[in-house]
Amino acid sequence: MSSQAQASVISPLQLARKLAADFAETAAERDKRGGTPKAERDALRRSGLLSLSIPTQFGGLGASWSETLSVVREFAKVDSSIAHVFGFQHLMLATVRLFSRPEQWQPWFEQTARKNWFWGNALNPLDTRTVVKTFDGWREFSGKKSFCSGASDSEMLIASAVDESAGGKLLIAAIPSGRTGITLHGDWDNMGQRQTDSGSATFERVRVEESELLLDPGPLSTPFACLRPLIAQLHFTHIFLGIAEGAFEEARQYTLKESRPWFTSKVRHVSEDPYVLRHYGEFWAGLEAVRALVERAAAQLDEAWRKEHGLGSEERAQLALSIASAKVAATRTGLDLCTRLFEVTGARATHAALRFDRYWRNLRTQSLHDPLDYKIHELGDWALNGTRPTPTFYS
Amino acid sequence: MSSQAQASVISPLQLARKLAADFAETAAERDKRGGTPKAERDALRRSGLLSLSIPTQFGGLGASWSETLSVVREFAKVDSSIAHVFGFQHLMLATVRLFSRPEQWQPWFEQTARKNWFWGNALNPLDTRTVVKTFDGWREFSGKKSFCSGASDSEMLIASAVDESAGGKLLIAAIPSGRTGITLHGDWDNMGQRQTDSGSATFERVRVEESELLLDPGPLSTPFACLRPLIAQLHFTHIFLGIAEGAFEEARQYTLKESRPWFTSKVRHVSEDPYVLRHYGEFWAGLEAVRALVERAAAQLDEAWRKEHGLGSEERAQLALSIASAKVAATRTGLDLCTRLFEVTGARATHAALRFDRYWRNLRTQSLHDPLDYKIHELGDWALNGTRPTPTFYS
Amino acid sequence: MSSQAQASVISPLQLARKLAADFAETAAERDKRGGTPKAERDALRRSGLLSLSIPTQFGGLGASWSETLSVVREFAKVDSSIAHVFGFQHLMLATVRLFSRPEQWQPWFEQTARKNWFWGNALNPLDTRTVVKTFDGWREFSGKKSFCSGASDSEMLIASAVDESAGGKLLIAAIPSGRTGITLHGDWDNMGQRQTDSGSATFERVRVEESELLLDPGPLSTPFACLRPLIAQLHFTHIFLGIAEGAFEEARQYTLKESRPWFTSKVRHVSEDPYVLRHYGEFWAGLEAVRALVERAAAQLDEAWRKEHGLGSEERAQLALSIASAKVAATRTGLDLCTRLFEVTGARATHAALRFDRYWRNLRTQSLHDPLDYKIHELGDWALNGTRPTPTFYS
Amino acid sequence: MSSQAQASVISPLQLARKLAADFAETAAERDKRGGTPKAERDALRRSGLLSLSIPTQFGGLGASWSETLSVVREFAKVDSSIAHVFGFQHLMLATVRLFSRPEQWQPWFEQTARKNWFWGNALNPLDTRTVVKTFDGWREFSGKKSFCSGASDSEMLIASAVDESAGGKLLIAAIPSGRTGITLHGDWDNMGQRQTDSGSATFERVRVEESELLLDPGPLSTPFACLRPLIAQLHFTHIFLGIAEGAFEEARQYTLKESRPWFTSKVRHVSEDPYVLRHYGEFWAGLEAVRALVERAAAQLDEAWRKEHGLGSEERAQLALSIASAKVAATRTGLDLCTRLFEVTGARATHAALRFDRYWRNLRTQSLHDPLDYKIHELGDWALNGTRPTPTFYS
Repeated sequence: MSSQAQASVISPLQLARKLAADFAETAAERDKRGGTPKAERDALRRSGLLSLSIPTQFGGLGASWSETLSVVREFAKVDSSIAHVFGFQHLMLATVRLFSRPEQWQPWFEQTARKNWFWGNALNPLDTRTVVKTFDGWREFSGKKSFCSGASDSEMLIASAVDESAGGKLLIAAIPSGRTGITLHGDWDNMGQRQTDSGSATFERVRVEESELLLDPGPLSTPFACLRPLIAQLHFTHIFLGIAEGAFEEARQYTLKESRPWFTSKVRHVSEDPYVLRHYGEFWAGLEAVRALVERAAAQLDEAWRKEHGLGSEERAQLALSIASAKVAATRTGLDLCTRLFEVTGARATHAALRFDRYWRNLRTQSLHDPLDYKIHELGDWALNGTRPTPTFYS
Repeated sequence: MSSQAQASVISPLQLARKLAADFAETAAERDKRGGTPKAERDALRRSGLLSLSIPTQFGGLGASWSETLSVVREFAKVDSSIAHVFGFQHLMLATVRLFSRPEQWQPWFEQTARKNWFWGNALNPLDTRTVVKTFDGWREFSGKKSFCSGASDSEMLIASAVDESAGGKLLIAAIPSGRTGITLHGDWDNMGQRQTDSGSATFERVRVEESELLLDPGPLSTPFACLRPLIAQLHFTHIFLGIAEGAFEEARQYTLKESRPWFTSKVRHVSEDPYVLRHYGEFWAGLEAVRALVERAAAQLDEAWRKEHGLGSEERAQLALSIASAKVAATRTGLDLCTRLFEVTGARATHAALRFDRYWRNLRTQSLHDPLDYKIHELGDWALNGTRPTPTFYS
Repeated sequence: MSSQAQASVISPLQLARKLAADFAETAAERDKRGGTPKAERDALRRSGLLSLSIPTQFGGLGASWSETLSVVREFAKVDSSIAHVFGFQHLMLATVRLFSRPEQWQPWFEQTARKNWFWGNALNPLDTRTVVKTFDGWREFSGKKSFCSGASDSEMLIASAVDESAGGKLLIAAIPSGRTGITLHGDWDNMGQRQTDSGSATFERVRVEESELLLDPGPLSTPFACLRPLIAQLHFTHIFLGIAEGAFEEARQYTLKESRPWFTSKVRHVSEDPYVLRHYGEFWAGLEAVRALVERAAAQLDEAWRKEHGLGSEERAQLALSIASAKVAATRTGLDLCTRLFEVTGARATHAALRFDRYWRNLRTQSLHDPLDYKIHELGDWALNGTRPTPTFYS
Repeated sequence: MSSQAQASVISPLQLARKLAADFAETAAERDKRGGTPKAERDALRRSGLLSLSIPTQFGGLGASWSETLSVVREFAKVDSSIAHVFGFQHLMLATVRLFSRPEQWQPWFEQTARKNWFWGNALNPLDTRTVVKTFDGWREFSGKKSFCSGASDSEMLIASAVDESAGGKLLIAAIPSGRTGITLHGDWDNMGQRQTDSGSATFERVRVEESELLLDPGPLSTPFACLRPLIAQLHFTHIFLGIAEGAFEEARQYTLKESRPWFTSKVRHVSEDPYVLRHYGEFWAGLEAVRALVERAAAQLDEAWRKEHGLGSEERAQLALSIASAKVAATRTGLDLCTRLFEVTGARATHAALRFDRYWRNLRTQSLHDPLDYKIHELGDWALNGTRPTPTFYS
């Protein structure tokens, strides 16, 4: 059965749950190992979910952003590295959709759906070491780039470079990952998100055709194009929530099956301990707040996306604020839960084989993508002064 | 122009905003004075909003719970005492709707809409000092009762008494407030919610007819009847949110117009101070979380209400949990905001004439209706053990 | 028996406890009334404690700062307004001690001890409306001044004015409160600290002799002179701690005597309720941290004070940091405790007659003297960059 | 130069700093590796610090508990595994001192000082799987035991077993680690405290002489003997503080040398960023509170220790409460700091080679020794009810 056929039988979310159940079995072991989750990436390819957000007329599953991000969250519950690269797949697709002309992105969409291409990221606006040289009809990208999530084992790459001859203008291109001159160093080795392959790359005189440049309308050019960073931010927020939900569920199973009441507690089973119940009550209240914010923001993104070029900057700003609030809550609630989960599971839950610390390590790592302090600052400037967030690659 | 006609020209929420603007002008002064806000209660009577939640076929405005509670929240922004008695009006109407037979509640609804009756509360299940004596065809209520919010200046009263001959069964009745034997002591003098008239009452051999007793289906008898405490809880939550939103808006105006930057801050205007912006950013993120939870819970209540006797206990439980999460967030976020608002307004904002402390006093007082600790306990029992909250007058 | 004799029989702290017990009986009522606590001020005069910090050779009780501030804290437990003006008495004495020549401060000390003078404050460096005019041999102060704590019913006043002819230099003088041209408006009416008389004053061509000016060594002139703002800050910190300790003790008595267990709690007495115990445990842990910080800082102040002109700026900086840490903890712990105390006492504890809200109102008001955000900023600049706090009237 | 001679030249704390500097160089690598830090243990043996707490008359360095625990804290800044086993060395020595007769512990002290014996732990009162069989003049220990910190590579072992024939009485013995029948499984593999060797052991008919049993005065027999659990608790608290201080210092160095300001921050160097300074200010205030509590508790322990059998249960209780408050603060402040340190260092600080996550992993693991919730409960029972903590192996 083809992947598309398979996907049509059950919903994408059901399909994701099935995959997630498989990923869960090896997640702890792969967290230890790091590197590229090749088998899992291939399972994603076969599943058809790489074209989840591609409209059906281009061969995709036609999912809304709410649906797509729900799948990210589902994966994040058990494996936030896979959730990250899977979400980035759709962020890269959104990037070409938003920054290039239909005659550019439509074939890329079709080919992605047909060939189950994986897209990786080499767009890092704050890393300006990769520069452009302009030739007649083509460009050349040269230099280094860090944090290239999902670039390894990908078919296509979104890459950026600085055009110093044009005042430091950021150029973004969609190119085959295998193009001559691209070296992915496979050097990602971090305390968390260990299978995201977010290592460094070198571009050595990489030829980029004009037709591969995302120039029209170009990056952050219109309110609609400015949805790109918001999709990225909301994607992160779904990962944070998913990690916290996964930690909650893992803690819950452990408490019920393994934990023992403290000897002075006067309860027979730890599930009756008032302090354990208090932690769980606070976990739940916290998660519910994040869920309500995240789901509201996702619905607003769907609405904004449907407006396309009719999207106004005010509505885009409201969405940005909505996502920022969700991100603040998801980060704080998640870090608190991933730290406190050990207080409801106990000393034995620190056993290395369980790797329960990976929830904290993954969330802590991913949540540093851009500073929470400046997200709160943006919210404050809105709340006090009514100032809309300035669109950047992080806002 | 009659109240109903007036209400039909503009939406209830717009009407409420107009009233709220009037209430705001005297709110600080009335907070100082305490007692019954007679002029404001009469304005509410004239507005037609006392029949806001009464279906149109009985002469009311036919508002959903979402709409009704939005009006509560709107009032709470400027005057949480009025918000409380206004919300209790509709809680009392819901009480007769849920606990009595159509031939009982329908006439009460019609008369309330026609005569703009105000309903007061003398139902306090934890205060068991009022007892029942049974006669042939009627009962007699005798004893004391505390926390009778909105009983003063009301036309109707929901009163409870304990039937000791029936094992301590709680009997609830709807009776005219002016009936012989009822004394309202007008003794409410508290640190907050000072115009809610939540004082004590004495029942001295008060005759209650069988037709005034809410026996069929009776209190907390079915999942639908069990919506009563949930409406109360969600009503409180809307008050908490409204208070916090009012405090936020008052702080904002003051910061922008009156506050000055600290002399070591290096900013020209306090609106650029990074720490002031941080507080506002956190206020906003906190309020957004509460808004998302509260609005979600209100939509779920509307849905549950529409199901009437088709409502199942599982759906009722999910609603209870949803409201509990909203309440936890609203209480904590609100208390934090009402305390920290002074850090963004400064020392001069403590001037008694401003009465900015009333936000904290009102929220602190109202949020003690039932203990937050046990709300978190309920959430914990659900989160860990999957145990549904047991319906009581507080859950 | 004379006051000095009385003071010699029992320790100053015991004497303060005796007075505090009297003050406690009327504290709630006086919080309501506001205005000048004349009877209590006279009791302080009679007690001899107004010369608590004055060395014995000048007729005082010769207490160290630790001892003096312990008395402030003792008063703050029951009446933080009195604690404030009492502490300011000794801050004013320290001001003349630190900023003027021995032939100036020594007679003031002697007269204060002999006549039980009360000193009030009209030094507010951020309020620059009072200006100086220089004549031959004397000056003239004219203008307004806000936040003049303890000026009413005082014998002496520390007043400041700006000398615009000298580049805005701050001049500080010690003058009799009754001098011609000084009007105290008695207009303090705030949400908290209601009996501190921190209202406004007008200086109308008030003559100030050269011998009354604190010019040598002058304000903030040496590390030793720079102890003045640190004494002020540590004084506030003792008030915050005292308020929190008073709130704790009042809550404890109420919980034990009045509170009832929640009906779903399964305990017979509220003193066994696990969540009530949790709050009290956190209160205690919080108070203990503040106590340890406050007592350490007071001991360091004693040591610094003993060094007089031998005090170096590094040691003065360490003391400033120590006090700043204590202040952060005292403010946060106190506000949290004064808010949560109602969760361990319950709804009935909001009765106006109890005035339990005054703890929060007093602490909230007093803690706005200067922004906590900038105190944390100072600590951060030290912690990260090793930068010492710059001495100002607030640091 | 002999170890004792070496130790006499410089102070134990200076010596510890020297060792700590060496340990620091390999700490990250050894955290990765896990297992027994044999080279470091041997360096400790050579240093003479294994007899730090042994009185000089028995050949030790005669340090007070304050001094001994300061060394634990110093080690914990760079390597909390070594800090743990080093502190346990002195806890085991205290165990024999407190629970046995002088003719038992004195030779053990002398031999430890002379031969630089390392003592390991196999006392776990909650693990009741090891049982006693009584013979004429000796006993036999058989069964399993978990969490045997520092047992590997030790010369002596404190082991416990349950005497079922005596109603489950806990027997504790001091025995050579190499005795026949003892198997240490070397199976400690946890997310934190990875070089503490806290794995499991099996006792297979291990012969224990009467003279090796700590029966007189026996475990928890007198207030003085009851200092044992308090030393353990304060030891943990010093580890928590040391970890937090180490994390602070590592973060500080990284921020100053490696971090870059966020592109919207308007500051040239991250050291001027207001939000970064705020984090550092809160870190400092938090650490200062813990330091004040920890140092106060250690001084109280020294005083209690000096009283020996004159120690009363009230004073012992006050010490227990003091330590409990310090532990609450150290745990919470530490976890917060170890989580937030990444917000002042940034995304690149998650690189695996830095292993900055080990601070959180180590603190999280060690702080689960016994539940913080029940420590707060104890404090609450004291604060509200005046109930002294019941002495157990955890209180």
